[in-house]
Amino acid sequence: MQDVYQYIEDHKEQYIEWLQDLCRIPSVAAQNRGMQEAADHVLNDLAEKINGETQLVSTSGFPVVYGKVPGTKEKTLSFYNHYDVQPEDPIELWEHPPFEAEIQDGTMYSRGAADNKGNLMARIAAVHAYQQVRGGLPLNIKFIVEGEEEIGSINLDEFSDNHADLIQADGCIWEFGYRNADGRQQVSLGVKGMTYVELVCKGANTDLHSANAAVIENPAWRLVWALNTLKDENEHVKIEGFYDRVQSLSPEDERAVRDLIYSEKEMLKQLDLPSFLLDLEGKSLKERLIFAPTCTICGIESGYTGKGAKTVLPSEARVKLDFRLVPDQDPYEILQALRKHLDNHGFEDIEINEMAMEKPGKTPYNDPLSETVIAATKKISNLEPTVMPMSPGTGPMHVLCQKHGIPSVSVGVGNFQSNNHAPNENIQIEDYIDGIKLIATVIEDYAKI
Amino acid sequence: MQDVYQYIEDHKEQYIEWLQDLCRIPSVAAQNRGMQEAADHVLNDLAEKINGETQLVSTSGFPVVYGKVPGTKEKTLSFYNHYDVQPEDPIELWEHPPFEAEIQDGTMYSRGAADNKGNLMARIAAVHAYQQVRGGLPLNIKFIVEGEEEIGSINLDEFSDNHADLIQADGCIWEFGYRNADGRQQVSLGVKGMTYVELVCKGANTDLHSANAAVIENPAWRLVWALNTLKDENEHVKIEGFYDRVQSLSPEDERAVRDLIYSEKEMLKQLDLPSFLLDLEGKSLKERLIFAPTCTICGIESGYTGKGAKTVLPSEARVKLDFRLVPDQDPYEILQALRKHLDNHGFEDIEINEMAMEKPGKTPYNDPLSETVIAATKKISNLEPTVMPMSPGTGPMHVLCQKHGIPSVSVGVGNFQSNNHAPNENIQIEDYIDGIKLIATVIEDYAKI
Repeated sequence: MQDVYQYIEDHKEQYIEWLQDLCRIPSVAAQNRGMQEAADHVLNDLAEKINGETQLVSTSGFPVVYGKVPGTKEKTLSFYNHYDVQPEDPIELWEHPPFEAEIQDGTMYSRGAADNKGNLMARIAAVHAYQQVRGGLPLNIKFIVEGEEEIGSINLDEFSDNHADLIQADGCIWEFGYRNADGRQQVSLGVKGMTYVELVCKGANTDLHSANAAVIENPAWRLVWALNTLKDENEHVKIEGFYDRVQSLSPEDERAVRDLIYSEKEMLKQLDLPSFLLDLEGKSLKERLIFAPTCTICGIESGYTGKGAKTVLPSEARVKLDFRLVPDQDPYEILQALRKHLDNHGFEDIEINEMAMEKPGKTPYNDPLSETVIAATKKISNLEPTVMPMSPGTGPMHVLCQKHGIPSVSVGVGNFQSNNHAPNENIQIEDYIDGIKLIATVIEDYAKI
Repeated sequence: MQDVYQYIEDHKEQYIEWLQDLCRIPSVAAQNRGMQEAADHVLNDLAEKINGETQLVSTSGFPVVYGKVPGTKEKTLSFYNHYDVQPEDPIELWEHPPFEAEIQDGTMYSRGAADNKGNLMARIAAVHAYQQVRGGLPLNIKFIVEGEEEIGSINLDEFSDNHADLIQADGCIWEFGYRNADGRQQVSLGVKGMTYVELVCKGANTDLHSANAAVIENPAWRLVWALNTLKDENEHVKIEGFYDRVQSLSPEDERAVRDLIYSEKEMLKQLDLPSFLLDLEGKSLKERLIFAPTCTICGIESGYTGKGAKTVLPSEARVKLDFRLVPDQDPYEILQALRKHLDNHGFEDIEINEMAMEKPGKTPYNDPLSETVIAATKKISNLEPTVMPMSPGTGPMHVLCQKHGIPSVSVGVGNFQSNNHAPNENIQIEDYIDGIKLIATVIEDYAKI
């Protein structure tokens, strides 16, 4: 593969520019900004840069960009990515403009650089380099690039049901991956599921002077009390049945947790924290990170939140809650259990708005794709990779892979300080170039199995 | 007084325009908008319209507008008002622009119309009418018009300490008053005190992807748990010592509660609510409204609160809390008790930002000023007034009145649907004109005692 690696090195400036061009499109699905432009841009890249047979597959939401590049074998490797990004706020905390893809000291700063445009473009670049050097591909490649990952892939079920033929593959490289604080590449064999909801509690039909609080119900207090029934200070989720379907760890899972290198000190230092949640450390920390389902307040808002003191009794309170689920929890069962829980605790009036639902997904350690990717990382880096049985993150892996019997492995170009979903999202240029080489290696090696 | 009343009727258009001119200045203290303009405007009105000896008294914050109009007796009646208003947000809920003072069907809509510019201008107009008809005043009048009432009168302590001579009076008409749903004028003999704070809970030094929530503390959850320790679902404040200084009701207070007409059905209908807090009604509802201290979430914010689903682990959570206090609770003692309570419950890390502090204030029923004002309302309206031993609202009454041995009685031109501190704040033009006549009557009658 030295010929391909050398080509990648010789053309790195071009591959960096390709990524910058894509990052400069502010494709925020939650706010419907720049989405058409980003879809068209990716479609053109697949068609023009790597001769893909492309189509824009419409859904009830933003379209899926699809591209197939034929190879010399019947075998097919697919790539799942997304062209949408998270909103960039709080904008004031960015040290570089979020959509200019500035490079400073070997780091590219942009919303989407790590999640997920850097990974997508590394894969396009890998296919390009392989084609340029070898004249063609040793297997078929499919790109499935959706536009709603950051809003919960709300129409991917529909895509999955209607386009099983487009999806079908022998293996799928999932969207993301990171280099850890210790420099090791992280390879993930699964993702957590998700139930993402907004709870809304309503009071009087207008905000009132807070002098009325002695006799008028305050929806912010009701929401606080309702939330308090959901999770206790020991982080135990109190919804009845929440843990019922949680699988116990297999011996392989146990081994993976034991072998996992998680750089506790570096992480705490980076985040300026004295300790982890519940003073976790070592094995229990790693086990929780990978295998614990969660219940997270992603956002809460009620009343006056501006400058100074305003004495207001709010008319409404809202909270966004994200439950991360592990096998075999089911997002719809959890939603039902939440409704029942609120009803049982006297909060029948609190509305639940369903916002995103995903089943967890997991691929075995001994799958040929898992083995190929793990081996490939060792060819690019001289450090052993960190293999995560399941990523703490979420994605529509089940609906695109496990549901169709396709194994999936996640690897990518981010790093432990990439600030996904946060200000100053970034990737290291070196990781991007290594990521291109890694995918080229996977293409070569997976074709041989 | 028919001569004065007739003059007021004949000049009502002029008095309405005076109020509109003042309402059109968006004097939002919390946001430092239009404050100098409003202070100058009030100063000019006092000097030019009623020949006041005026001065702009500087403080560490926005200045106090002071005006004295000499009368034929040594007796002095003072008026306490404020030229600042609450922020107008949420702006999208206003049906009339908040700073244009539009009149529709006998109602003027404006931020500040009820709280407190309508009352201030009614008093200026009353002095003006009395002067025009009688050639002079029967007692000295003082206007004390501050600019920081809506941000907790944070520099009025300083004014009170430095300018006891300006403040000194036989009685003070306090800033506000309302006509209830049953048409009765409400007269208040006191105000609740206040401890207004912001609690801040911090987590990691940046927002994170919520996948990290399995191992990184979430400040929004910590704030929810901390709030849950402050007040239970029965509205009992759980801070140790919170109720220690609360006075039991005097026989006069009991009588006032019994006689108080509170239009429960109208209030519920107006607010589109099925019931009051804790299903309160009748005597217990009224007693709680007037005599119960409160603990109110005025605003809470953390993480992503925009459109759509963002999977973020917030780095910070904030809540604005307003405690309304009754005699003899002390705002600084409550602040200390809150700090101690949080520490005792393991929330030492939660910061408390002190935002406004007021002692409660109360004047006896049998004070000559109370008796004068109550009698005057009966001359303007054919309905008995509702006498509130204490308003559920708050103001710096103690620091301007009780501390200087000055009785104070609150009466004004608002109504039960005035939407103070809320969108579509308004007053009825008829109440404004009656309010001018009422103050003219108080000037006449109080001079005779």
